[in-house]
Amino acid sequence: AKIAVLAGDGIGPEVTTQAQRVLQVIADNWDHTFEFEDALVGGAAIDAVGDPLPDSTLKTCRESDAVLFGAIGGPKWDDPNAKIRPEQGLLRLRRGLDAFANIRPVKPHPDLLEAAPLKADRLENVDLVVVRELTGGIYFGKKTRDADRATDECAYSVPEIERIVRVAARIAADRSGQLTSVDKANVLETSRLWRATTERVIRDEFPQVRLEHVLVDAAAMHLLQKPAAFDVIVTENMFGDILTDEASVLAGSMGLLPSASLSDDGPGLYEPIHGSAPDIAGLGIANPYAAILSASMLLRHSLKLEEEADVVERAVWRVIHEGVLTTDLAGEGKRSVNTQAAGDAV
Amino acid sequence: AKIAVLAGDGIGPEVTTQAQRVLQVIADNWDHTFEFEDALVGGAAIDAVGDPLPDSTLKTCRESDAVLFGAIGGPKWDDPNAKIRPEQGLLRLRRGLDAFANIRPVKPHPDLLEAAPLKADRLENVDLVVVRELTGGIYFGKKTRDADRATDECAYSVPEIERIVRVAARIAADRSGQLTSVDKANVLETSRLWRATTERVIRDEFPQVRLEHVLVDAAAMHLLQKPAAFDVIVTENMFGDILTDEASVLAGSMGLLPSASLSDDGPGLYEPIHGSAPDIAGLGIANPYAAILSASMLLRHSLKLEEEADVVERAVWRVIHEGVLTTDLAGEGKRSVNTQAAGDAV
Ligand SMILES: CC(C)[C@H](C(=O)O)[C@@H](O)C(=O)O
Ligand SMILES: CC(C)[C@H](C(=O)O)[C@@H](O)C(=O)O
Repeated sequence: AKIAVLAGDGIGPEVTTQAQRVLQVIADNWDHTFEFEDALVGGAAIDAVGDPLPDSTLKTCRESDAVLFGAIGGPKWDDPNAKIRPEQGLLRLRRGLDAFANIRPVKPHPDLLEAAPLKADRLENVDLVVVRELTGGIYFGKKTRDADRATDECAYSVPEIERIVRVAARIAADRSGQLTSVDKANVLETSRLWRATTERVIRDEFPQVRLEHVLVDAAAMHLLQKPAAFDVIVTENMFGDILTDEASVLAGSMGLLPSASLSDDGPGLYEPIHGSAPDIAGLGIANPYAAILSASMLLRHSLKLEEEADVVERAVWRVIHEGVLTTDLAGEGKRSVNTQAAGDAV
Repeated sequence: AKIAVLAGDGIGPEVTTQAQRVLQVIADNWDHTFEFEDALVGGAAIDAVGDPLPDSTLKTCRESDAVLFGAIGGPKWDDPNAKIRPEQGLLRLRRGLDAFANIRPVKPHPDLLEAAPLKADRLENVDLVVVRELTGGIYFGKKTRDADRATDECAYSVPEIERIVRVAARIAADRSGQLTSVDKANVLETSRLWRATTERVIRDEFPQVRLEHVLVDAAAMHLLQKPAAFDVIVTENMFGDILTDEASVLAGSMGLLPSASLSDDGPGLYEPIHGSAPDIAGLGIANPYAAILSASMLLRHSLKLEEEADVVERAVWRVIHEGVLTTDLAGEGKRSVNTQAAGDAV
């Protein structure tokens, strides 16, 4: 299989290296051949060729079976008024691959509950998946700006909503059958269309799935008050951005959370949900588990290697249990390991 | 002073009655005259006259010094496809009063930390105020809808941003001088205008205020990871909606959080941030403290009765300390009091 590697900026290269090593070990042990191809993205690509997503990178991705992505951005390219910014590379990549279904599982590790801001009893049995629409909504709508005024348009079409709801409903059907759709139907027209479309798709195509609707403001509360009550959550792009970052706190550290962004037929895009963390870049202390777990999702979703994916997931779960923790997980004053050692352990 | 009372739906009337009683006690003890005038809003107004904000209600509000608001909405009027919905009453009222500055303080009561989802050590020293822009953004932008597609426009103008930033900066200057502006400047054009305008207003008009910018997704995390690090937060309408509900969890219960919505010259609008809670409406068990604290904000901001406002606030704080708790606060199996008794105690 061909895997494009877009390490990006900040801690991106460090954590991606570990994920790639783990994939190589899998290849060696199961007799697979993974061809890795590096490509530029984000700030690194701006510096090299003046474009956060060079055509050659998109081409490499499209010709691969999957894309392993690190992180992008940093103070060097941070001016929000700059014409060219690293994030544009990621947004154009998501869109260019039509990777509309962003899947973010959140399952706190029992050994890390002490480090999490929430009380341990609230975190018991938390095991949820957020399915975020990733290529529509206000992220990609028409924008205008003049000296005195700016606008961003949030737009959704019925087919865009249908396809993401189907992805979420399939995941829900494979789990407990419970699906929570999050919107702001009491205010937004797009949310009312979202709600009506979701209702219809579930009624007509997924009779076994139980659907409930929650307003986004209430969802932001319920995620903290009764996180174990959620199973699969489906929502639009901007709400998904906010809620998944909020939900990451349930797991104790963003450094643990992987994501997969899938299209209907092209290659999937796999990235840790943490960012480029410029403050610790280059120190070799970044937590590689989210990147490694993203590699596990890559094995599962793009290469259909279920067993191999399980092995990687269990390995991460176990080394955490054995106390191989990077500083973000270890807690103050505790012993911690560096990025490389955590990768070695897995 | 003239005070319009818009009790609304669900638990709105129950909690508003208690707030009104407290205001009457203040009037009696300090020799003020408060004339209360009831007016219809929300579902109650739809049922009575087919309009969630009858002209007569808006007129009553405009002729008052302040508006005491309960809550709106309920299953009866819940169809998102209905042409007439209770929320429209609230949105039109905010807009009709030009109540653009929504102020939501969050300060957990030390005696309630046990009941909160967050670990008590995270909640120590939390004392923050969210200033939410309330009459602009995607809430009030152009909307379109046809069979296949829907849109909502988010728009902000420089003067709209300037005036809310000034309100927030004044509050910050009266406190620690620290102001956090929340936006999504890496994606939205409105956020880039927001950021640039905020920078300029603070630089030119509030040299004593320290301004930092945080992306909304990061803010959703930081609110849980290091809530005590925030002082005053300013943000646009939709982000404010989500973040204030999230932040309410820090206080243990929404039933404790008041809000004030201020215009530059008209009457202020005071409402608890909790909703109409139809599931417990009419049972007499709703928590009236948020409504009573909203009445305290009314005394402070609209009537300039600082001392009286302090007395009300301290009274609520004290009865909580004495253990006069409604069911939402008491925790399972603990003794709790009803709405009326909590009002009596204050
Ligand atoms: C970097 C940024 C554009 C991106 C987003 O908002 O989608 C990030 O926050 C994420 O969630 O993957
Ligand atoms: C009822 C609803 C329209 C309202 C809002 O979204 O502003 C509520 O959630 C609030 O925060 O006051």
